[in-house]
Amino acid sequence: MKLLGGAIAAVDHGGSLGRASALFPHAPQPFVDLSTGINPHSYPLFDLPATALTRLPETGRLRELAEIAARAYGAPSAAHVVAAPGTQILLPRVASLVRPGKALVLGPTYAEHARAAAIAGHAVADVRDFDALAGADLAVLVNPNNPDGQVIERDRLLDLAARLRAKGGLLVVDEAFMDVGPIEHSLAGDVGEGSIVVLRSFGKFFGLAGVRLGFALADTLTVERLDAQLGPWAVAGPALEYGIRALADTKWLGEVRQRLAGDAMRLDALLARFEVPVAGGTSLFRYLSLPDAQSLFSALGERGILLRHFADRPQVLRAGLPGSEAEWQRLESALAAWAERRKDMGKESGR
Amino acid sequence: MKLLGGAIAAVDHGGSLGRASALFPHAPQPFVDLSTGINPHSYPLFDLPATALTRLPETGRLRELAEIAARAYGAPSAAHVVAAPGTQILLPRVASLVRPGKALVLGPTYAEHARAAAIAGHAVADVRDFDALAGADLAVLVNPNNPDGQVIERDRLLDLAARLRAKGGLLVVDEAFMDVGPIEHSLAGDVGEGSIVVLRSFGKFFGLAGVRLGFALADTLTVERLDAQLGPWAVAGPALEYGIRALADTKWLGEVRQRLAGDAMRLDALLARFEVPVAGGTSLFRYLSLPDAQSLFSALGERGILLRHFADRPQVLRAGLPGSEAEWQRLESALAAWAERRKDMGKESGR
Repeated sequence: MKLLGGAIAAVDHGGSLGRASALFPHAPQPFVDLSTGINPHSYPLFDLPATALTRLPETGRLRELAEIAARAYGAPSAAHVVAAPGTQILLPRVASLVRPGKALVLGPTYAEHARAAAIAGHAVADVRDFDALAGADLAVLVNPNNPDGQVIERDRLLDLAARLRAKGGLLVVDEAFMDVGPIEHSLAGDVGEGSIVVLRSFGKFFGLAGVRLGFALADTLTVERLDAQLGPWAVAGPALEYGIRALADTKWLGEVRQRLAGDAMRLDALLARFEVPVAGGTSLFRYLSLPDAQSLFSALGERGILLRHFADRPQVLRAGLPGSEAEWQRLESALAAWAERRKDMGKESGR
Repeated sequence: MKLLGGAIAAVDHGGSLGRASALFPHAPQPFVDLSTGINPHSYPLFDLPATALTRLPETGRLRELAEIAARAYGAPSAAHVVAAPGTQILLPRVASLVRPGKALVLGPTYAEHARAAAIAGHAVADVRDFDALAGADLAVLVNPNNPDGQVIERDRLLDLAARLRAKGGLLVVDEAFMDVGPIEHSLAGDVGEGSIVVLRSFGKFFGLAGVRLGFALADTLTVERLDAQLGPWAVAGPALEYGIRALADTKWLGEVRQRLAGDAMRLDALLARFEVPVAGGTSLFRYLSLPDAQSLFSALGERGILLRHFADRPQVLRAGLPGSEAEWQRLESALAAWAERRKDMGKESGR
């Protein structure tokens, strides 16, 4: 919640309606929040048993969750799975698995990785070249990457992991958006080899960001170390119940993957109609790159449509998926109004 | 979930029905679980807004929780409050606030403190004498203590804190059961002086152990350090909603404190009828000390009444409060049966 200065300073994120209201106080409410990559079609809510709130979470239930997560994510076994109250809280713990050294993060990407590595005592640098990661003690990348959707192939990752392993280093692959593929490049099945930690996020794909559930997949010794750091009862009752039910629901998973892919195509088509170029992304968010990104961000914001912008990269934006037909309509109207204004501005500057 | 060997080994706890079933496979179900100090009369459950599950927790809401918690616990301000997904997950982070040195824990007490200090790299020892704590870099005690209810006076604590502060040490006071007093010995109002961290547990007093919510109260710089370790969204949506509503409900707090005090007296009277000596405790649990504690534990367990026993202290037990009249009756019957058997055994051995 507070700034600490330097690399450990708090990071700006999407998904805050409080921040949206402060930025666009006159926008029509409610906001259409496209500032995250969270699935707007959440897993169906259900009534929790009272004991999920009143009793301490049961170890047996946690074991069940680990087993289901191992299957869902393709980890070798439940002993290769750490369940945590969100992936976020794991980041400094994972970064602390190697003693303070040189941490390299393949960027630009999710900013919390650099912050977590700094907290863990590493000297952190952002690199743009995948091959440079081999020089790290701790190498971190997001696959597919957030926000641009860039994918690093599994072969290259395994090669990097082997090089890091040889010198006692660690490769962290944040697969927060891997639920929508490309699954053949996931390292979930390879964590048994060691020196690899794969992070998986429950809340994004299942649209349940509030329950706080995330996973680290790793070799069994690393799992023990991380579990010891978290201690007992780290995963809340509601997260256990939703995790166990949703991760086992392969029918829902399949249907939603298809639906999200269709929605992402629809979003691309809509953006194309207004000449907003989509430069990448995943089925959960699209990556927009255009010179007048700031104008688009502001124009949509004033109409209550919130995109994700990046203070240090004014020419790119990220757009999540609208959830309802009404939201699609509001996005379309806002885009149309912006495009109209852009056309007028173009005419004026052309005079 | 797994054993790590040495001081970092997983610790046995109460509150697991899975473990209870394994220990007493023939016991009548459901168990009457008196193995924890969790209030059996939980704060009234309410319907959560869907957004508490689907959206990322809002920073503004977290700030609100910190303000309400500061008032409820008597901390100087919201800036002196860290909210976390349970106190448990804070323990290694708090123990890491001082560089690895000598950690002394006033025991016997909640075993996770020693484990957390060991994880943080400290050489940990258990001391029985309060005055010995002054020799520590990290001094930890639980006030009132779990399981015996022993209270250390605020003056003595402040004196210890001053001595530790003078040499860069830290005093951690776990006030997990301070909601039922004696509040005049809480250090919540003193954390601004520095070198003091007070831990408060939401789940025990409010009977909502499954939501996972706990607090550290500390000076503002320490709060910033701990917040940075947790990162954004550490507290889940349901925990935020329950915390904000319940901690502000002073009427409920007052009524429940009275009810728990009455229930604790009733439990003492019941135990006294069967000559089970109560040696201490708080309104949330009673501490029993008797030579045949193991026989009592087993006899009650076989009847589906679960107490807390301690592997290393076979002559003591801890008993939480029954929640319903039916539970009180089952406890009474089980105690009566045990007392009868004890009398018979006494006669036999007297022959």
